[in-house]
Amino acid sequence: MSAATRLRRNDEHRHIVVLERGTHVSFANCGLPYHVGGVIQERDDLLLQTPASLAARFRLDVRTRHEVVALDRTRRVVVVRALETGEEYEEPYDDLVLATGARAVRPSIPGVERAHTLRDLDDMDAILAALGGGDRAGARTAVVVGAGFIGIELAENLVRRGLAVTLVEREPQVLPPLDPEMAAVVDQRLRESGVAVRTRAAVVRIDDTTATLDDGTTLPADVVVTAVGVVPESALAERAALEVGERGGIVVDEQQRTSDPSVYAVGDVAVKRDALSGGATLVPLAQTANRQGRLVADVVSGRDVSATPVLGTAVVGAFGLTAAMVGWSEKRLRAAERPVRVVHTHPSDHAGYYPGARAMALKLLVDPETDAILGAQGVGESGVDKRIDVIATAMRGGLRASELADLELAYAPQYGSAKDPVNMLGMVADNLAAGITDSVQWHEVDRAMRDGATVVDVRTPGEYASGTLPGAVNLPLDELRIRHAELPSGRLVVTCAVGQRGHAATRLLRQLGRTDVVNLDGGYRTWKQAVGV
Amino acid sequence: MSAATRLRRNDEHRHIVVLERGTHVSFANCGLPYHVGGVIQERDDLLLQTPASLAARFRLDVRTRHEVVALDRTRRVVVVRALETGEEYEEPYDDLVLATGARAVRPSIPGVERAHTLRDLDDMDAILAALGGGDRAGARTAVVVGAGFIGIELAENLVRRGLAVTLVEREPQVLPPLDPEMAAVVDQRLRESGVAVRTRAAVVRIDDTTATLDDGTTLPADVVVTAVGVVPESALAERAALEVGERGGIVVDEQQRTSDPSVYAVGDVAVKRDALSGGATLVPLAQTANRQGRLVADVVSGRDVSATPVLGTAVVGAFGLTAAMVGWSEKRLRAAERPVRVVHTHPSDHAGYYPGARAMALKLLVDPETDAILGAQGVGESGVDKRIDVIATAMRGGLRASELADLELAYAPQYGSAKDPVNMLGMVADNLAAGITDSVQWHEVDRAMRDGATVVDVRTPGEYASGTLPGAVNLPLDELRIRHAELPSGRLVVTCAVGQRGHAATRLLRQLGRTDVVNLDGGYRTWKQAVGV
Repeated sequence: MSAATRLRRNDEHRHIVVLERGTHVSFANCGLPYHVGGVIQERDDLLLQTPASLAARFRLDVRTRHEVVALDRTRRVVVVRALETGEEYEEPYDDLVLATGARAVRPSIPGVERAHTLRDLDDMDAILAALGGGDRAGARTAVVVGAGFIGIELAENLVRRGLAVTLVEREPQVLPPLDPEMAAVVDQRLRESGVAVRTRAAVVRIDDTTATLDDGTTLPADVVVTAVGVVPESALAERAALEVGERGGIVVDEQQRTSDPSVYAVGDVAVKRDALSGGATLVPLAQTANRQGRLVADVVSGRDVSATPVLGTAVVGAFGLTAAMVGWSEKRLRAAERPVRVVHTHPSDHAGYYPGARAMALKLLVDPETDAILGAQGVGESGVDKRIDVIATAMRGGLRASELADLELAYAPQYGSAKDPVNMLGMVADNLAAGITDSVQWHEVDRAMRDGATVVDVRTPGEYASGTLPGAVNLPLDELRIRHAELPSGRLVVTCAVGQRGHAATRLLRQLGRTDVVNLDGGYRTWKQAVGV
Repeated sequence: MSAATRLRRNDEHRHIVVLERGTHVSFANCGLPYHVGGVIQERDDLLLQTPASLAARFRLDVRTRHEVVALDRTRRVVVVRALETGEEYEEPYDDLVLATGARAVRPSIPGVERAHTLRDLDDMDAILAALGGGDRAGARTAVVVGAGFIGIELAENLVRRGLAVTLVEREPQVLPPLDPEMAAVVDQRLRESGVAVRTRAAVVRIDDTTATLDDGTTLPADVVVTAVGVVPESALAERAALEVGERGGIVVDEQQRTSDPSVYAVGDVAVKRDALSGGATLVPLAQTANRQGRLVADVVSGRDVSATPVLGTAVVGAFGLTAAMVGWSEKRLRAAERPVRVVHTHPSDHAGYYPGARAMALKLLVDPETDAILGAQGVGESGVDKRIDVIATAMRGGLRASELADLELAYAPQYGSAKDPVNMLGMVADNLAAGITDSVQWHEVDRAMRDGATVVDVRTPGEYASGTLPGAVNLPLDELRIRHAELPSGRLVVTCAVGQRGHAATRLLRQLGRTDVVNLDGGYRTWKQAVGV
């Protein structure tokens, strides 16, 4: 619809036909889980435009329940089946835009026909019907398969409806796009909120009122919803011999042209260019789909414009937590064998002296050779979306990680800090880039200790007593100048609560003649988050 | 303190002396108004560090109530007066950092000695004493002079304390750094919240329980606080013949060096470089001061680093509203005779179909020749700080206004929209840059009508009936295709609620053969905001 409406504004005189297999055009996909949970109370609020409203305003010829079953590129016609009547007819085109989207993957397991997916209003209606009308007569238990963004939104909203929910994820963590120590914060919140989380688990069979896991566990499941990803709806393009990429996306150039220059593809069905690697990627997000719709209308209208490579900025809310990310994760970078510098921090969303400050966990991924920002992640109760948006903008603007330190972000005590969380990430990145300090990651401590390193916890004795890394010795920062000789020789791994006192200690020890001192990045809090103590 | 602590982390072996005339170092200046209002309940929460804590952690020799009364650059010594004893002594230096800040301007009017200012804890304590301890015995009326950021925070917090507050501002608007139509939203909220706002007014005399305005009005004023700006505290530098700029700031180079290479100046006392003009400017903000402290420590330590030019990003809260800005305002640009393209929008902070969405007013200032972003302003109940931070980051990254359209910002319905407010600003900017549409500003409509233009309100008859521009004719967008011939010849100024339907109408009319059609930027809402109907 963004392509069609933009094209009409560009060109009043074209004949624009919109063919839609489903019942609705222009509905609020991203709101569907929230109507399931009753947060969005009125179903009608999800319907943004109708064929009638689009005809009145934009003179669009919108035909719902009309499926394009074939594409004859030589004759430049599509074959349309009117689903109400079964009748087929041909519709000619000068320019054809394929915006067929993606469909939910359905696992191949016995009983999967009882499982719901959630992509459109019909899916949502089916879930609501399965949940039942009244509280007593309705479903009481649900299994959600897949703990990605949609799975987590579904779990939250089914809990809102009063169901006992089990969330099943094949990966070792929830929110697989995030790194495990960041996702762990969400995992904990899900459990605290009553969701039974089962990671490293797969549903292998669905029966009438249960779902069975691969370890034999039988879960009560009045309702089953799968949310295990989507694949491009590219069968039509494939049948028409348009070039389709490995994972099923239609291959397009920077003007969204397919291998046939009269045929364009946009949105979830189209292959995108990744901003970091320059390679092909699939990013099924509303923002990108929307923007490509606008772009293709301009291209068809003869404007010289190009698609922007994608960063994949995404956010999800879960029981009062916000988790957001942009760019690549550490595990993706490591899997691709790209060198990466990692920064974890635990800042407050606003000045600590102003009431209501909430801690968040932030993570920055940096190219150690160029200081380029490769990605970021954040989890917390407040202010996370803002920081990820700022970093996404910095990435688009080509700012180096160190330059985040000098961003001028709006500061008053209810909104941020004189050193905003994003500035702090930049300062740590700058210290690392300049060689002022060096750090180790939470997953590198065990190895360091096996190799003879000593972990020095520089927090107060009270903090140390309330929990620390196994084997860590305590030497509070403020006593370090006079007592540093007590520390054993060899490598020192300094740790504190979040990494800040550790930084001061690292600097101090280095200048007191210790040559091999590193700071535990993110401190005890990141480590604890990761190992789940 | 940021200079001293960073320098210590850089260099354990230097002797670092911090000389402070006042009673405290490292307190939360920006929190002072909120302790006056009782939002920050504990005074101690405002004290971030003490000389003792700084000695323990950073081995800093912090001497409060020690005033530097002279600077002998030839001998490299400062003359220090210990204010408790009156004793004077000399302290030598290799490198000297002047971080003397700024002091509040006090108007030269009879009785001003009864007026308070608010820069430090002593000022705050004096205000609290003047307000009185118990509710009954205490002050009941207050006059705040100056409706800038601090004046507005003071007004809000005095209202919180139960006082009847009059806010007096010499300029024709509150929040003079903003443009009038944006500040008008804050003005309205102040009045609705019980603040008596008096713009274009000056206090000319202060008596025991009243303040008198230049029009003769006598205002009840148990307490008077002036907040009419600050000037650099550069007397010491002037006496030492260091170069001082026109408005009293110490002139520095990109490494914060004054005209004497052993003497540095940072923070409110130092002249900054403006990011837009490259010229000298004074921006007394915590963020910049903080960053310059870190920078100068690195320079003194021999690191090759330079100060970043300032954008002046700022934010203020007032009775549930947030007002924020970055860069230059329209009036500042016009006063400097810089060409400017202006965009007003009224987006929601998050998807309209998700509960709790709040409208905001956004404004973008663009260089019409280069498409560079020159500034932005926002006012609203939610999400304003995020959008201004994103735009500030885009400016730092050198993104063009049109490129805001393609920023990938985190979208889920509780956080934003698939077309985020910042994206929308970019799309409008892109349409204007590409010549796809043209707009007029709210202050240009009168002139256009006098020159014979017709204002066409394309909203529904119901919306039109509830208020429109004087003389506007109504022709709803959805009827425009069939009824456009009813419109008179000559220039057409199209208007709607916020500019979006107006854009569609402008495009349509242009393609239907109307050559002179412009859209009223920001629609009726911006116009109404500005003219205060």
